[in-house]
Amino acid sequence: MDNSFKFSAVVAGAGISGATVAARLAAAGLRVLVLEAKAHAGGNCYDCRDAGTGILVHKYGTHIFHTDDKRAWDFLSRFTAWHPYFHKVLAQIDGALVPVPFNLNSVRRVFPPVLAARIEGKLLERFGFGARATILELRGSADADLRLLGDYVYEKVFLHYTLKQWGKTPEEIDPAVTARVPIFASRDDGYFRDRYQAIPREGYTALIGNMLAHPNIELRLNTPWEAARACVPAGTPIFFTGAIDEFFGFKFGELPYRSVSFEFVEYAREYFQPVACVNYPCHFDFTRIGEYKHFLGEKSPKTVVSFEYPAAFERGKNERCYPIANAETAALYARYADEARRAFPQTRFLGRLGDYKYYDMDKAVLRALDAAEEFLRAF
Amino acid sequence: MDNSFKFSAVVAGAGISGATVAARLAAAGLRVLVLEAKAHAGGNCYDCRDAGTGILVHKYGTHIFHTDDKRAWDFLSRFTAWHPYFHKVLAQIDGALVPVPFNLNSVRRVFPPVLAARIEGKLLERFGFGARATILELRGSADADLRLLGDYVYEKVFLHYTLKQWGKTPEEIDPAVTARVPIFASRDDGYFRDRYQAIPREGYTALIGNMLAHPNIELRLNTPWEAARACVPAGTPIFFTGAIDEFFGFKFGELPYRSVSFEFVEYAREYFQPVACVNYPCHFDFTRIGEYKHFLGEKSPKTVVSFEYPAAFERGKNERCYPIANAETAALYARYADEARRAFPQTRFLGRLGDYKYYDMDKAVLRALDAAEEFLRAF
Repeated sequence: MDNSFKFSAVVAGAGISGATVAARLAAAGLRVLVLEAKAHAGGNCYDCRDAGTGILVHKYGTHIFHTDDKRAWDFLSRFTAWHPYFHKVLAQIDGALVPVPFNLNSVRRVFPPVLAARIEGKLLERFGFGARATILELRGSADADLRLLGDYVYEKVFLHYTLKQWGKTPEEIDPAVTARVPIFASRDDGYFRDRYQAIPREGYTALIGNMLAHPNIELRLNTPWEAARACVPAGTPIFFTGAIDEFFGFKFGELPYRSVSFEFVEYAREYFQPVACVNYPCHFDFTRIGEYKHFLGEKSPKTVVSFEYPAAFERGKNERCYPIANAETAALYARYADEARRAFPQTRFLGRLGDYKYYDMDKAVLRALDAAEEFLRAF
Repeated sequence: MDNSFKFSAVVAGAGISGATVAARLAAAGLRVLVLEAKAHAGGNCYDCRDAGTGILVHKYGTHIFHTDDKRAWDFLSRFTAWHPYFHKVLAQIDGALVPVPFNLNSVRRVFPPVLAARIEGKLLERFGFGARATILELRGSADADLRLLGDYVYEKVFLHYTLKQWGKTPEEIDPAVTARVPIFASRDDGYFRDRYQAIPREGYTALIGNMLAHPNIELRLNTPWEAARACVPAGTPIFFTGAIDEFFGFKFGELPYRSVSFEFVEYAREYFQPVACVNYPCHFDFTRIGEYKHFLGEKSPKTVVSFEYPAAFERGKNERCYPIANAETAALYARYADEARRAFPQTRFLGRLGDYKYYDMDKAVLRALDAAEEFLRAF
């Protein structure tokens, strides 16, 4: 970078958080420099056309946009048209494909009619139609049928899936999480309850590309923060969406993440499975199979799916996906956050890696909008 | 073979047992000679493309890999990708296609609703959801409905199938086997309960070919043990996966086997039957029909099926398939095994024919891995 540094702010990371900040600041008239370590924008939302089938695939796992927040929806709607898409997830359990989270349809699918009718009646009587019961409530019930349901869902839907996803039992992670696993006393197979549920009509990469396609924004790909930071004049406001521990050279230690590796496989048939996402809680070492053509209703004589294998994150080997929430990591993150406030007051950390927090896409957008607007008010 | 015999071990038989031993020893750096009497590797797992339809068929009967053992799964996964496949078997009974082993779905399919509901309720009350009841328990029950179910399953699912499969009544074979025939108080139509259930994506022949495709392995096809044994230097460690009685020239008599002959038939329609395997316990002389395109989800306007006719094994006429387990054959096998230990301490017998024991594929792999690793420890 030369001496004529003409940017009012620098955004590190061109994922959905960084793109939101950049788009918001650019719309307010500020010139923004966006640095991205990878060869493409989009972060973990990145999608592209599969070479063999032409189907749009999500390279870092299935992403389904859903929100109840009109502000997030309206903001993104400036940059994309939408394909309405109601996500359903099936789980391979006891030889059947069963809707999850477990609901009354699932009950009817796995239990014999005599027992299913009894369970349904008791769920409706005890919790009411449409209510959300939890495993904890069911397993603690005085009624043997409800206890059986709670134990069944714990064992068949939750326990082994958690073991694969996190490498730990639910109890090792947080007993409160187990307690909250829901069973819905309804027939709604939808995975989300949000008002807005859709896929960007041209994909997430196009959406984020449109967010960054503003004359006030300059995007530099293949530019890791470490390579660029020396060229950013002191005092420049920075929005950092990368890993906060990496920003500080891991001086207090490394924040752990769970990662996922994706094995993409093409099949010479129209469909591999009836929905976009099938979970395998009790079988194999992968957690789920994603079939991409379902998202946008793409038509093709072939199909492409991804098998998702969870693994520990290892730097340089795989991607950071899920922050690991526990007391120890919270304390470690807090040390970095304190250090950030103390030593880098001009640098705002945000996004899944900057905040070390799992965000759905809408929550990442809202967090980034808030950060940008707070900055603009003080600018 | 010439004088420069450069192999550390000889494996007789290129089925799944022999290939496992060879691959394991080769990976440890040993040079291995594999002798195979047939013109192809693969043993009874051998599959190939059907000439008329292009569909991958199992020439010695349907093979479905399933295991709960991660060691067997991980070992084979080095040599193949997998196609997840959950095996279901239907039986043609009383004019319907009914899941077997018998479960609550089967009960609903063959009995009128009033009786089915009564049986279902009593099974759940007596055994509990998900439990495994046996014919013996049902036939001995004080309840007339449960006795009726036990008698029905014995007669319609078990008796006549056994007569065809083994040429004997269940009681002639072993009353304990009859006693254990299960009825599941669940709706799981899956034939297996294992964590891993899959078909090698390119088939079993490709899998075993990959196992043998190691620079340390030399495979000689069309080479029966009898033709090659004179050329193997004395003292060479041998892993013999052929028939143990044949190894000894049948000196104590012949170990009997049940065989199966397969009649392959092509049909000019997309599907012949809804699942890969339909049993015919009460009709015809074949025991079952296998439809191969189901295994890998192959698409084709035609289909190919095999009719399986059980028969006594006759040397030179058909293949050894199932060892016949009874006191007499156990005593005869023991004589050969004793003789092997006494006269051929350097020769390890293993596999279905070497151990005269029915092995699922995963058990054959584990047995062979154990034999190879025990050998390597002492090498």
